[in-house]
Amino acid sequence: MAKQRKTAVSPTRAENYPEWYQQVIRAANLAENSPVRGCMVINPWGYALWENIQKVLDGMIKETGHQNAYFPLFIPLSFMEKEAAHVEGFAKECAVVTHHRLESDGKGGLKPAGKLEEPLVVRPTSETIIGEMFARWIQSYRDLPLLINQWANIVRWEMRTRLFLRTTEFLWQEGHTAHATKQEALDETFLILNLYAKFAEEYMAMPVIKGEKTEGERFPGAVSTYCIEAMMQDCKALQAGTSHFLGQNFSHAANIKFLGAEGVEEFAWTTSWGVSTRLIGALIMSHGDDDGVIIPPRLAPSHVVVLPIIHKDEDRETVMTYCEQFVKDLKKVSYDDSPMRVELDTREGRGGDKMWSWIKKGIPLWVEIGPRDIANDSVFVGRRDCVDDKRINMNRSEFLKKVPSLLASIQQGLHDRALSFRESRSININSKEEFYEFFSGGDESMTGGFAWAHWADDPAAEKQIKDDLNVTVRCIPLDTQDEPGTCLFTGKPSPKRVVFAKSY
Amino acid sequence: MAKQRKTAVSPTRAENYPEWYQQVIRAANLAENSPVRGCMVINPWGYALWENIQKVLDGMIKETGHQNAYFPLFIPLSFMEKEAAHVEGFAKECAVVTHHRLESDGKGGLKPAGKLEEPLVVRPTSETIIGEMFARWIQSYRDLPLLINQWANIVRWEMRTRLFLRTTEFLWQEGHTAHATKQEALDETFLILNLYAKFAEEYMAMPVIKGEKTEGERFPGAVSTYCIEAMMQDCKALQAGTSHFLGQNFSHAANIKFLGAEGVEEFAWTTSWGVSTRLIGALIMSHGDDDGVIIPPRLAPSHVVVLPIIHKDEDRETVMTYCEQFVKDLKKVSYDDSPMRVELDTREGRGGDKMWSWIKKGIPLWVEIGPRDIANDSVFVGRRDCVDDKRINMNRSEFLKKVPSLLASIQQGLHDRALSFRESRSININSKEEFYEFFSGGDESMTGGFAWAHWADDPAAEKQIKDDLNVTVRCIPLDTQDEPGTCLFTGKPSPKRVVFAKSY
Repeated sequence: MAKQRKTAVSPTRAENYPEWYQQVIRAANLAENSPVRGCMVINPWGYALWENIQKVLDGMIKETGHQNAYFPLFIPLSFMEKEAAHVEGFAKECAVVTHHRLESDGKGGLKPAGKLEEPLVVRPTSETIIGEMFARWIQSYRDLPLLINQWANIVRWEMRTRLFLRTTEFLWQEGHTAHATKQEALDETFLILNLYAKFAEEYMAMPVIKGEKTEGERFPGAVSTYCIEAMMQDCKALQAGTSHFLGQNFSHAANIKFLGAEGVEEFAWTTSWGVSTRLIGALIMSHGDDDGVIIPPRLAPSHVVVLPIIHKDEDRETVMTYCEQFVKDLKKVSYDDSPMRVELDTREGRGGDKMWSWIKKGIPLWVEIGPRDIANDSVFVGRRDCVDDKRINMNRSEFLKKVPSLLASIQQGLHDRALSFRESRSININSKEEFYEFFSGGDESMTGGFAWAHWADDPAAEKQIKDDLNVTVRCIPLDTQDEPGTCLFTGKPSPKRVVFAKSY
Repeated sequence: MAKQRKTAVSPTRAENYPEWYQQVIRAANLAENSPVRGCMVINPWGYALWENIQKVLDGMIKETGHQNAYFPLFIPLSFMEKEAAHVEGFAKECAVVTHHRLESDGKGGLKPAGKLEEPLVVRPTSETIIGEMFARWIQSYRDLPLLINQWANIVRWEMRTRLFLRTTEFLWQEGHTAHATKQEALDETFLILNLYAKFAEEYMAMPVIKGEKTEGERFPGAVSTYCIEAMMQDCKALQAGTSHFLGQNFSHAANIKFLGAEGVEEFAWTTSWGVSTRLIGALIMSHGDDDGVIIPPRLAPSHVVVLPIIHKDEDRETVMTYCEQFVKDLKKVSYDDSPMRVELDTREGRGGDKMWSWIKKGIPLWVEIGPRDIANDSVFVGRRDCVDDKRINMNRSEFLKKVPSLLASIQQGLHDRALSFRESRSININSKEEFYEFFSGGDESMTGGFAWAHWADDPAAEKQIKDDLNVTVRCIPLDTQDEPGTCLFTGKPSPKRVVFAKSY
């Protein structure tokens, strides 16, 4: 029987999931709210996690032939206006620069001065400015495909913000590509969707469903939007990445034309795709427990922390020297094709407090070493994915040999646990009544799950469901077989079940 | 005798240095002006160079105990106002966000709406917002030193811009640290100054002079500013990095206090330091020649390009297969502790054109391989640092063995050439007349150099020299011996010679 530890994060997930989320972030010191409304500060531990995400994704993006570049932070208002659906979608959340200097306000303070002729929007996404450059760069079919990625900060003015999930400023990568044919652009859209799914499952240990968005959830200006959707531990869905097939919409807006092999001028076909610091929110809510965050080993800023156990001053030197050597040996071990990332916690303070601070940070493994362990040539090992289980004594050299497989087992275990959870909260639903019941019962924050139901794309019905239950179609899955049926809400024919859920 | 090649960049350095600078950037496709006034687009080849700079510097910064974090893009106006000298220094170049959405202007277009209660400045540097967070994080001497670095984009509204050297938006890293004592903060300031100098000399192959800035050139709000200064090929100085000792100025402004070991509350001592995409401008102007950019091997996006030479279609398969294998073998060679970065140029087109496109990009080595080379088991190697010399035939396996030392020799050669150039244009000057003559003769863009002269810090005299000659004190050097003398301009005593130059 699990007893509530005094060391646990308060509240627990069951008590108050949204507040638990804020508290585990605080306990791990991943990020915090800044004095600038809606903008977060990403603290060193959280930023190191983002750097690991970046490093892996950047490698995967380059591996598939894309190149990084950098485009301006500011977008002239007139550029935004060129694609009607696009500007409509972002108009309500644009930070606008209108002045380029400050001058005295005559009351001892300062006021904006030097009004700009044309206001500049702080990029909420870069399709329009990058499209403008693409139009300059692309002349002939020989210039295609053009495969560009950008790592950047983005601003979308949000009224209600939550750390990592929805912030006014966030960090992301945005890919932008142009192709000679529709098919090539579609292939690119799916190439990236699969790349995102692979990253989510293999690195974040987070199972995802790949699918297409309905019209109402489409990116403003896209022809079709594809996404990966994951289930959080409160049974809500979180969209973890999107890949958009833009057709020729942005090519028309920015005049991206090329001379084809046959000598005919054509508009290019474009795509865009992105993932953001939101992934960190997804990671926290996929794996965290009531003790705090759990970081999958492949992305962990540190894999192992070594905690010297010193009860008597006379032991200090022996223990510290031994631990320092052990850290050196650990750093020589290779995990995931890189040297292990190891911490030595030399802080003063109680061993238990120090251990719990690392548990709250989600470090995969911790190792305690005291005089008795040294005498026995052993180490005392704890696993973050099963804090409740007894820590195990291992022979020192056996641990050095086994640590990569221990980490691999934690990585796999987190994935499998998340997948089991999702399966346990996924259900085929065959009637509207059952559907309403599934999403209505119990505590608002912990109900429902993924409802697989037949559905014929119908914006009015979708709106009704959203108004009634705050539930939306998360996606029309790509990897399931067709299974003709009848839409629960309209009675129209449906080619396959789609995934409904509450969502972030 | 050098003949002007038709392949050279036009104009040459001697003909028009500023225009040469623009043209080599264009020829190498490093960056270009964007449609957003003063903002540049960094193209893939230029961005890959920036990524290499980032990677090395980031490693050095972490190695010395600093952690990365991320802070908001926006700074509330009231924060900027807290440090008087600071806001005074930046007021004229601040981009100001005043609205948070767009609405119809009634004429088919859009206008800014949702006026903010307090305007937000797009960060021109982050001392004030990071200071605010430091004040929250620091309670006791145990929280110190606090050693933070941020990689970010920065906006300073510039009226006259030049790619990399002065742009409205640029990329940089900014370090911010807090310490318990003045001495520790000074030690940090110099630690970083030395780190920057090491990076400039060992990676950029760019000799620098470390020194202190005069009062007039100090960072707004700093107690003292230290810098590294390099000589460009037009004999002007370029400030390549700065490290500021901020004393307690920003601690007072943001209220960064800590409880000392003795139980007394004190203000922390802070530093800040940064280098930016400006380094790329410095690199271009240090090493470029009339054929284009020359990138030092340790920072080059690619070290070697392999150019298959195919004159007859029947040779194509043999040559391509051979080149592909050669590229694989080259990638197994280690240079600078990493696998070599190798390109295979499979584009169609004339061999000469392809070779020149790589020369213009500044790749350190190129290798041509045709049927005759394959028959002889040899490769035909060109070095970017001496395009005019004969290319050399080398045995294939000899080249594979020697390529790291070839690259090391190019790296060292670039450094030595730049150092010789600087030495040849540096002179001890002992009279005001000589000084004016040194900086007045000939073509405005290619005169003078570094004048080492005695100087007593005097803002009025400094202004006069600037007005007369557009020359400033670049720095009071740290690494030269004291040599008492008399200021050329005021007759006051001077402890040592300082460096005067025209500058970017």
